[in-house]
Amino acid sequence: MANLFFVPQYIITGENAIQLSMPHIRAFGKRALIVTDDTMVKFGNVKKLTDELEKYDILYRIYSGINSEPTHTMIDEGVRIFQQGGFDFLIGIGGGSPLDSMKAIGAVVSNGGSITQYKGKVIEKDLPPTVAIPTTAGTGSEATKVSIITNTDTGVKMLLSDPKLMAKIAVIDPVFTLTVPPAITAATGVDALTHAVEAYTSLKAFPMADMFALSAVKKIFKNIYEVYTNGTNVEARREMAIAAMEGGIAFSNASVTIVHGMSRPIGALFHVPHGLSNAMLLEVCLRFLKPGATDRLCDLAKAIGVYSEGMSEEEGADAFVNAIIELLHKLDIQTLQEFGVKKEEFIKQIPKMASDALDSGSPGNTRRTPSNAQIQELYQELWDSGEKK
Amino acid sequence: MANLFFVPQYIITGENAIQLSMPHIRAFGKRALIVTDDTMVKFGNVKKLTDELEKYDILYRIYSGINSEPTHTMIDEGVRIFQQGGFDFLIGIGGGSPLDSMKAIGAVVSNGGSITQYKGKVIEKDLPPTVAIPTTAGTGSEATKVSIITNTDTGVKMLLSDPKLMAKIAVIDPVFTLTVPPAITAATGVDALTHAVEAYTSLKAFPMADMFALSAVKKIFKNIYEVYTNGTNVEARREMAIAAMEGGIAFSNASVTIVHGMSRPIGALFHVPHGLSNAMLLEVCLRFLKPGATDRLCDLAKAIGVYSEGMSEEEGADAFVNAIIELLHKLDIQTLQEFGVKKEEFIKQIPKMASDALDSGSPGNTRRTPSNAQIQELYQELWDSGEKK
Repeated sequence: MANLFFVPQYIITGENAIQLSMPHIRAFGKRALIVTDDTMVKFGNVKKLTDELEKYDILYRIYSGINSEPTHTMIDEGVRIFQQGGFDFLIGIGGGSPLDSMKAIGAVVSNGGSITQYKGKVIEKDLPPTVAIPTTAGTGSEATKVSIITNTDTGVKMLLSDPKLMAKIAVIDPVFTLTVPPAITAATGVDALTHAVEAYTSLKAFPMADMFALSAVKKIFKNIYEVYTNGTNVEARREMAIAAMEGGIAFSNASVTIVHGMSRPIGALFHVPHGLSNAMLLEVCLRFLKPGATDRLCDLAKAIGVYSEGMSEEEGADAFVNAIIELLHKLDIQTLQEFGVKKEEFIKQIPKMASDALDSGSPGNTRRTPSNAQIQELYQELWDSGEKK
Repeated sequence: MANLFFVPQYIITGENAIQLSMPHIRAFGKRALIVTDDTMVKFGNVKKLTDELEKYDILYRIYSGINSEPTHTMIDEGVRIFQQGGFDFLIGIGGGSPLDSMKAIGAVVSNGGSITQYKGKVIEKDLPPTVAIPTTAGTGSEATKVSIITNTDTGVKMLLSDPKLMAKIAVIDPVFTLTVPPAITAATGVDALTHAVEAYTSLKAFPMADMFALSAVKKIFKNIYEVYTNGTNVEARREMAIAAMEGGIAFSNASVTIVHGMSRPIGALFHVPHGLSNAMLLEVCLRFLKPGATDRLCDLAKAIGVYSEGMSEEEGADAFVNAIIELLHKLDIQTLQEFGVKKEEFIKQIPKMASDALDSGSPGNTRRTPSNAQIQELYQELWDSGEKK
């Protein structure tokens, strides 16, 4: 059997990555549309980019309209600006939302129509060149083939997934993540960890994706508590930023599984941020999938150094799951209850959430296939575990 | 400090990789120029490719003129054919020579002039899309930014090196390597090993390149003797083919060092095949560089499982060097004497070879910087070690 592996063509990591990336960005042309949000402009992150563009005489326009999870109207507007301005290429700078938006704008610019027609669509034509500059260490959107855009007319979250959506250049400069506050640092970091763990325990895992998944898990266990408690440690921030990108590569090639499948409905119905709902679910989901992925979880225990000589595979897997639980505890991950979700509403929505989770296809990649009833039980367990805390 | 990492945009590995790659190849257009050699046509490798192209209604022409190390006249001819035929993209299939030729043809097609003007030139414009299909597991040319073309008018081997030379798609199907004879299997396999070991011990090493170097070294130690003695083992062939590509990625990002620096002059003057001259040099070069790279060699010992608990770093490094020596012995790597090099001629050329080696710049990336005198001594040691065998 053959495997397809794909990553951004140029990956530039480390302090001053923007400077090192400029000769490659310049090759894309002289007119750049920057896709971002107002906070990025206000905090000066966009200026760090535009200062460099000016040195290379690249003209730019800033479209800073991505001020929530991306909607179809934001994409429509971006497409209009791109086409009217005759731009050569796109630069997305920000968290997952501006990067996802950049991909969607690029897809529509090249392939026509309206973004509202793109749910599950194959992207036929290559996008204009895209440059992704993440400012959080989490989503990995800078190195994935996916983009999630909400059609606000229908309320549908559309998943676009195609290798052509992968950015041509990913610029991972830890300087942007230094000011991310602790709670967001923790939730986004656990999102990245979840990507890597799911990719490694996915039915679609294969060696090249595994390599990135393992590298991400190692880096995150080593650095996440440090960035949570000491956000200005640039070395640790760099490692986390690279790990998030590696997690993106891993899951974009090998897919996510049950955690993301169950997480999205919680986000949609209760507005729990994506990283946080993943973090909440990780423990119950790992306990569930363990019987199907004992060997893989034991590999992860070895990777992070919690496997001891003489342990059985099962003991190794348990050691990894326990290390995750301990980590989540240290990171003060909120429960559903602490986040403010009401019991009655949550319990009422369990059947719908379970169906939506299964429909997304992600749970089907888990090494232990969950039934609808089992997913309902896991949502119940998730609620109950929060009660005990 | 920031690091640039780049690989082919799509890497497709495993049995039937060609089939899986076709939708991505088709996106490049309807007219393909295939760059190869007569042997590839005769052995039916090209037909495996053209059968697939026909299924996708892609028109093609076969340019099979790369029947030795590539020369400037071969490239000129390829450029003429590409331009006259109005092709959309290039497919290189074969060993390092057809792949290097494809890159050079693409560079001239996009950037004009004659290949004879390309020594050390920055490649300004992107190439037409390129697809690299290696049929040996060695050079890694399918995943490198380099191409070596000889100007037969001046006798100069021109090194082209630019990230734009990286293939857009690399297709690694082990089916092509199944018929490679044992001696070539061993020499090309050790070439790949050398790429990975040099990249890992290079001054320019960084974590993303390291990951690929370590993965390649592990795979090669596990599989090279098997493919040497049992060439039809498709699993082992697949692992070696992937390892060669990983070695290419590693050195294309982190550079080669002293072995390649010293190897090229032996090839130029005594026509020793590239993989073989690397294999000959590996032992003396590793002994030389060890004091500067003890920690890195010890890492490699751990990666291949010859490091034992309680060893010092130096003992670990020695264990790796000894494992290499033992491996080369098992693979029956020829000495210079066995290859037919005459003592008098070799000794006479040592000063020139040492200067040429240093001029190439590669030895300067070694973690122990060699002087001209030290390189001369190493050539002498290489000769002497062959005398003893």
